[in-house]
Amino acid sequence: MKTRFISQLRPGDSLAEQFVLTEKTMAHKKDGNSYLNLVLSDRTGRIDAVVWDNVDQIASQTESGQVVVVRGQVGSYRGKHQMVVKEMTAVSAQEINPTDFLPATERDTDQMFERLKKLSESLQQDHLRDLFGAFWSDEAFVTRFKRAPAAKKMHHAYIGGLLEHTLSMAVLADKISEHYSGIDRDLLISGVLLHDIGKLREYTYDVAIDYSDEGRLVSHIAIGIQMTEDKIKTISGFPEETAMLLKHMIISHHGSRELGSPEPPKTIEAVMLNCIDEMDSRVQAIRDFMTKEDPGEMWTSYHRLLERHFYRGRPAR
Amino acid sequence: MKTRFISQLRPGDSLAEQFVLTEKTMAHKKDGNSYLNLVLSDRTGRIDAVVWDNVDQIASQTESGQVVVVRGQVGSYRGKHQMVVKEMTAVSAQEINPTDFLPATERDTDQMFERLKKLSESLQQDHLRDLFGAFWSDEAFVTRFKRAPAAKKMHHAYIGGLLEHTLSMAVLADKISEHYSGIDRDLLISGVLLHDIGKLREYTYDVAIDYSDEGRLVSHIAIGIQMTEDKIKTISGFPEETAMLLKHMIISHHGSRELGSPEPPKTIEAVMLNCIDEMDSRVQAIRDFMTKEDPGEMWTSYHRLLERHFYRGRPAR
Amino acid sequence: MKTRFISQLRPGDSLAEQFVLTEKTMAHKKDGNSYLNLVLSDRTGRIDAVVWDNVDQIASQTESGQVVVVRGQVGSYRGKHQMVVKEMTAVSAQEINPTDFLPATERDTDQMFERLKKLSESLQQDHLRDLFGAFWSDEAFVTRFKRAPAAKKMHHAYIGGLLEHTLSMAVLADKISEHYSGIDRDLLISGVLLHDIGKLREYTYDVAIDYSDEGRLVSHIAIGIQMTEDKIKTISGFPEETAMLLKHMIISHHGSRELGSPEPPKTIEAVMLNCIDEMDSRVQAIRDFMTKEDPGEMWTSYHRLLERHFYRGRPAR
Amino acid sequence: MKTRFISQLRPGDSLAEQFVLTEKTMAHKKDGNSYLNLVLSDRTGRIDAVVWDNVDQIASQTESGQVVVVRGQVGSYRGKHQMVVKEMTAVSAQEINPTDFLPATERDTDQMFERLKKLSESLQQDHLRDLFGAFWSDEAFVTRFKRAPAAKKMHHAYIGGLLEHTLSMAVLADKISEHYSGIDRDLLISGVLLHDIGKLREYTYDVAIDYSDEGRLVSHIAIGIQMTEDKIKTISGFPEETAMLLKHMIISHHGSRELGSPEPPKTIEAVMLNCIDEMDSRVQAIRDFMTKEDPGEMWTSYHRLLERHFYRGRPAR
Amino acid sequence: MKTRFISQLRPGDSLAEQFVLTEKTMAHKKDGNSYLNLVLSDRTGRIDAVVWDNVDQIASQTESGQVVVVRGQVGSYRGKHQMVVKEMTAVSAQEINPTDFLPATERDTDQMFERLKKLSESLQQDHLRDLFGAFWSDEAFVTRFKRAPAAKKMHHAYIGGLLEHTLSMAVLADKISEHYSGIDRDLLISGVLLHDIGKLREYTYDVAIDYSDEGRLVSHIAIGIQMTEDKIKTISGFPEETAMLLKHMIISHHGSRELGSPEPPKTIEAVMLNCIDEMDSRVQAIRDFMTKEDPGEMWTSYHRLLERHFYRGRPAR
Amino acid sequence: MKTRFISQLRPGDSLAEQFVLTEKTMAHKKDGNSYLNLVLSDRTGRIDAVVWDNVDQIASQTESGQVVVVRGQVGSYRGKHQMVVKEMTAVSAQEINPTDFLPATERDTDQMFERLKKLSESLQQDHLRDLFGAFWSDEAFVTRFKRAPAAKKMHHAYIGGLLEHTLSMAVLADKISEHYSGIDRDLLISGVLLHDIGKLREYTYDVAIDYSDEGRLVSHIAIGIQMTEDKIKTISGFPEETAMLLKHMIISHHGSRELGSPEPPKTIEAVMLNCIDEMDSRVQAIRDFMTKEDPGEMWTSYHRLLERHFYRGRPAR
Repeated sequence: MKTRFISQLRPGDSLAEQFVLTEKTMAHKKDGNSYLNLVLSDRTGRIDAVVWDNVDQIASQTESGQVVVVRGQVGSYRGKHQMVVKEMTAVSAQEINPTDFLPATERDTDQMFERLKKLSESLQQDHLRDLFGAFWSDEAFVTRFKRAPAAKKMHHAYIGGLLEHTLSMAVLADKISEHYSGIDRDLLISGVLLHDIGKLREYTYDVAIDYSDEGRLVSHIAIGIQMTEDKIKTISGFPEETAMLLKHMIISHHGSRELGSPEPPKTIEAVMLNCIDEMDSRVQAIRDFMTKEDPGEMWTSYHRLLERHFYRGRPAR
Repeated sequence: MKTRFISQLRPGDSLAEQFVLTEKTMAHKKDGNSYLNLVLSDRTGRIDAVVWDNVDQIASQTESGQVVVVRGQVGSYRGKHQMVVKEMTAVSAQEINPTDFLPATERDTDQMFERLKKLSESLQQDHLRDLFGAFWSDEAFVTRFKRAPAAKKMHHAYIGGLLEHTLSMAVLADKISEHYSGIDRDLLISGVLLHDIGKLREYTYDVAIDYSDEGRLVSHIAIGIQMTEDKIKTISGFPEETAMLLKHMIISHHGSRELGSPEPPKTIEAVMLNCIDEMDSRVQAIRDFMTKEDPGEMWTSYHRLLERHFYRGRPAR
Repeated sequence: MKTRFISQLRPGDSLAEQFVLTEKTMAHKKDGNSYLNLVLSDRTGRIDAVVWDNVDQIASQTESGQVVVVRGQVGSYRGKHQMVVKEMTAVSAQEINPTDFLPATERDTDQMFERLKKLSESLQQDHLRDLFGAFWSDEAFVTRFKRAPAAKKMHHAYIGGLLEHTLSMAVLADKISEHYSGIDRDLLISGVLLHDIGKLREYTYDVAIDYSDEGRLVSHIAIGIQMTEDKIKTISGFPEETAMLLKHMIISHHGSRELGSPEPPKTIEAVMLNCIDEMDSRVQAIRDFMTKEDPGEMWTSYHRLLERHFYRGRPAR
Repeated sequence: MKTRFISQLRPGDSLAEQFVLTEKTMAHKKDGNSYLNLVLSDRTGRIDAVVWDNVDQIASQTESGQVVVVRGQVGSYRGKHQMVVKEMTAVSAQEINPTDFLPATERDTDQMFERLKKLSESLQQDHLRDLFGAFWSDEAFVTRFKRAPAAKKMHHAYIGGLLEHTLSMAVLADKISEHYSGIDRDLLISGVLLHDIGKLREYTYDVAIDYSDEGRLVSHIAIGIQMTEDKIKTISGFPEETAMLLKHMIISHHGSRELGSPEPPKTIEAVMLNCIDEMDSRVQAIRDFMTKEDPGEMWTSYHRLLERHFYRGRPAR
Repeated sequence: MKTRFISQLRPGDSLAEQFVLTEKTMAHKKDGNSYLNLVLSDRTGRIDAVVWDNVDQIASQTESGQVVVVRGQVGSYRGKHQMVVKEMTAVSAQEINPTDFLPATERDTDQMFERLKKLSESLQQDHLRDLFGAFWSDEAFVTRFKRAPAAKKMHHAYIGGLLEHTLSMAVLADKISEHYSGIDRDLLISGVLLHDIGKLREYTYDVAIDYSDEGRLVSHIAIGIQMTEDKIKTISGFPEETAMLLKHMIISHHGSRELGSPEPPKTIEAVMLNCIDEMDSRVQAIRDFMTKEDPGEMWTSYHRLLERHFYRGRPAR
Repeated sequence: MKTRFISQLRPGDSLAEQFVLTEKTMAHKKDGNSYLNLVLSDRTGRIDAVVWDNVDQIASQTESGQVVVVRGQVGSYRGKHQMVVKEMTAVSAQEINPTDFLPATERDTDQMFERLKKLSESLQQDHLRDLFGAFWSDEAFVTRFKRAPAAKKMHHAYIGGLLEHTLSMAVLADKISEHYSGIDRDLLISGVLLHDIGKLREYTYDVAIDYSDEGRLVSHIAIGIQMTEDKIKTISGFPEETAMLLKHMIISHHGSRELGSPEPPKTIEAVMLNCIDEMDSRVQAIRDFMTKEDPGEMWTSYHRLLERHFYRGRPAR
């Protein structure tokens, strides 16, 4: 359990604390002796570190990717903080609290989940309510569903982000399905709930958010199709057409081939799912980005993926 | 005033009715005598017609684009209806009821306008309320605003379509601005109200919907900027930043250069305006399209602009 | 069972023969009486037809898409053959020989299948041999696998086309895996065998080749993933990594997002599968196209999808 | 030698005149007898024609693509002119005046050529003057250079069009090379003269403008490179760098890969050549297009390649 | 007023000089004491600097973006010049000569402006001459018009660049309008003069060239439309069609949507304006780029925006 | 002749060895004295180096791009090897063994060439055999053909790479031409042999692989066309159509305009050449890339040109 985080460290601090050992590289001084360059991280950021003594022993006992306990002192090098490390040893899994190392949603995960569950219980079609009942009673699924991020970098890129994103979309879908006549609310909300469940397996999110092998090779779209198919098979008499339409919503939710969907949305509900997903992702991505930027500036720095600066306006605004 | 419409005509009908003379071409029979091929239209569709007698007189008294009174009889040629025209004369402007010739919204225009007005009165910022007050008290503006279509072909392509589209977006914007924290509701709703006003001058919509010269040469985006600027100048003390942000929402509402916006959305409200516009346009475009298609088919025909067939599902659905 | 085909018909011929009733439209003569315009087809082409008598009875007894028996006489209208139909009645399923109506591979389906089977038995990994054993002993699968086309229009667009395409690719893959060192032959050949199996359900191919609802909504890529996953579950101890790599080959075989693959090929075998698929499809598409063209011309007509004319060279060549 | 052209024909005219037999198709009447549908053309347009009598004889004596003498009478069919042909025989090459069948520049070809020659004589570098001397004294080259079109459809698509386009560009290049300092006028003007000479072989333009086999297979860019290289080899001591820069201008003159240049312009003169070419082609393409359109309309019809309507303005303008 | 510029500084120099304080970052030495890393700039370039003493006082008295007076000594660090700063204080606006800090055109601004004015007086249409008369007598406009750059980075990115670019284009337009018949010279030259005037407000260019808020949010195209509209309103009887055509030239001058024009050029003069703009921008961009490159090299370094190396040729050339 | 290579150097080593002097930059210490920063390279990699003494003399005697003999000692700076250079002098051409400085194919060049020659002798058409006879008896050609790389960076980017790539393709073409019926084996294999010969002049590859001026300005496609044309001219009676088809294969072998071919493949053999080229280039590019990567990792680093990570799988695989 951590008590001090990287964002709080100041030159002069002495500490013994857990970090993720993000990078570890052996280097050589002019006199031929070796030393270690490290990058340590936790959920608040990263810090450079060096090991001058006991280099070989420390190098052999630890591996990059692990959580380690580090004893050392914070200094400064070229205008940046740098830790000089005296001791560093790996930490066993039980001693680790993953939320120390990964940013997490600020909202209550259980409350969000309960709201989502209630929405699923409001569906009119028995088979759909049964389908989500089957998901919610699958403990392994629920545990991962509450933890999974919605992305590695872009939006909701934190523990609980997928749940937060799914709930936000579901509430919007509920409102919008009333706004337009002729929308199949059951279908739209079910599509929202299922569209990204493949992300439970597309990412790893124990002490860092990254793609899993399966995520990189098979994509969350195909994983989601399989997860949905598997659960549908457990519901007897599930209508074939509904199954097909749900899978269509998963496969088409990116909107076009260029964005990763082999088929574009071909029902009005699939079109709406795509629009709601895009709005929620973009709004949240921009808000996440603005939050991290210098609050004194009217314009954000350049957003590489969205390819523009954003305007935050005069301070008084 | 029309009593019978093209969709109601059957072979054998005799009639004397107003139509738009959409096309008029002189042709020649094998014996060298000339005749006229016509296309007539009203808000329910088009019909082919021929003039065999009094050809020169009829040809010289009418011009394509005009509304004409036609006396004749409906027959059939190559499996399609065809009218044989005996007399055809131009109609003076006073005798014309434009709604006979152009499809119109099925909703009550005045009621829609009142709802929009009320939304504009709910804005918190005085200057914005004053701005819309100035628009609503400009009679020429309001008259056109209630009639303008939102497009020539794609979505809301009928009299009153712009008002219908704007109101639908404003109601959605209102709902969504509550859903997310940190949204400037005043700005978002004002942007929705203004984003397409350039369409009042981009189209002509007297007896047919078409682009105006100004629309083709200057685009509704630039026209809208000028109309907004002109009205803002009449409001003393209108904040410069707000003026700039409103114009930004107009110029960026298509979302990207490829889609016709010289600048992409750079505020969170402009991003949301673009998302809401896209959703409302697409949902309505697809519903308009599905309505026109054969209700017995599970799939629509190919939609050229959206490049796909849409699925309407099993009849029982 | 048909004895005469559309390509053999000549003006003056009388006949009573089966055709697919591809189109059926009611039309009206000048005198107000109705008649029927038809399009009839079989595996050799299409012919226009008209029904002048007993129109209502004939119209009510048949549906477009059905196979019908037609009695009538071949004439000529505007320079094209036209059949005047006297009688037309629907045909029951047992009387139909589907190969009369759909073009089919010219090669022996059973021989092709045996060769493919042998190739699958040459794989070194037990689990893969078991997997294909499971497919080959699934009769419903094999029946469809021997009949499915590889496309609706482009290449191998005929009964047995998928098998022909898969075998051609597998033989090439076998040769090429020897050419390069370090290729996992088992993986490459298995990927070839599985990459398009989703097409068994993407198309319907009873008396016409068209997309199925599932094909249009879910795509052969996602269907193929599910079919593979389902079979793999029946093989105990099937290695997880191999399963993932097979599914990767299915999902990536179009090469890029623009071409419909959510993930690009990320193993050397997936890259090769994509190359071999592209070569075999293109070579066959061009040969199919050249075959249909006028043999006296040095250049083919314009190929719309490949966007060019092809050169066939001087006759003597 | 023709005396009457298609644009002058009126129903009732009898004539015996040369035309290009552009299309010839055998057709059948209801009674089983055959007739011929023809399309005839000359430099003023096209006309449909039919042969009712002596069909077999006429069909066997003529081939599409040939110039024929036709005796017949002009009538009208479905509102379009149609010629009923009594006799039609092929014409020998000596009797043909190609300018009867292909549209040609309205300017004096010899005068244009002399002006171009003079410009080439104004170059400062001896080797370049020698190079063009070699071209101008190659009679086969000059004959074709004076006749070649600059395109099949787009701009300057008529006999002498390439010369007209090249001269217009050369005069512009001369003016512009004075406007900017630091431009190598010799290089720029030489590049203009050579950039399109591959078109002499890319097109055939005897009685119709079409692509040659070599044009379709090798492209005017590669042909132009070879023609330039061949001539340079005849000039002793021609500087290697200059040769390379001239070939660069030929290969890069379309400006980018997407437009057909394997390399983009990499010298300031090549950049200017590309700009001047684009301006001259577009201005002329739009003027050619406007000329053909209805002078009473303020807007042209839709230009498919340039993807827009053009505005010609109020008549009084 | 500056006497020494960054490009002239050498290690060992002592100086007290004005610079723009482009960057200012607080840093910490290993002993915990703080120091300042600076970047200073003037119109000849940039230099790194450090402050070791009086750090807090100096940091609090100055802000990045300001012009400051710096007292210090030039040294060298890691092979680059570095200034050690002893004192640094902000400078009041009156003491600043902006041309010290921003690169400027090498040509005489007043002479260029007079030439442009004369061209505008040569227009035939009274209303157009009046329009430009109104612009030239608007002092605030003229002051900014003489100073504005044409771009931030690409071409004419210096004080007076817009005037230089506009004049160059106007002279070219004058020449080219003679070259082609049927060009409306008045319209073309007026379009050239107006096409970029929105850049007066799109950029800020006091001591650095950057985008203004209005520039980023509204774009120079929409600003230019408003500036033109505002001036036209002051000319009584200005023809509506001419106003529309001028605005069309502004809005379409980038040539296509992808390049930022909501409408493509739809008159022959708008097409020519786009061509001339492209030629002048590219030629100047490449010349600016070549000038900055090592004169001893035959090839320039890679140009990121134009995506190529440029060839400057053998030295003797 | 080198005895030690950069990949073998360790801190503490003293040596006197040849290297390519890749970069040379003068720098200044704080005391005002100058020193040299160098980058040295050989076929195994690059090393940084510094010269502290005799700086001016050493700087004036050597030029970047040259091969030099260096005397010095290996140390370490910031965790990377760095050589401190005592003496450095240029080396005359005779003393240089180019294979010391450029990576080369691991296969026997002469054996590969013999295999290729035999393949060319297996062609059935006399004129084609004669053409390759002419190439093989052109010693300057053969010398360069055995040395040329196939690319600067992507695939086969080493001495002998072009020969290796050409041979691999030719063997594949041979196999594949048997697989499909109706392929002109002579044409396909000849096209393979010729398609990249322009690379002999597109690159320079004495002590470093780079583009030649001609390569950058004229492209290997146009160079290859000229080389082929020149050789064909020496074969009397070479069929024109064959010449045209060979040149077509050279010009179209990149497959599309976007990839640098002015014309796409328009014969079945040209289509196959393009497919085989793509497969061989990609397979080899990925294998080259995987080889350089850390063998302990399951995924490669990001491949910038192919825009993905590649999966190498579990170690045991």
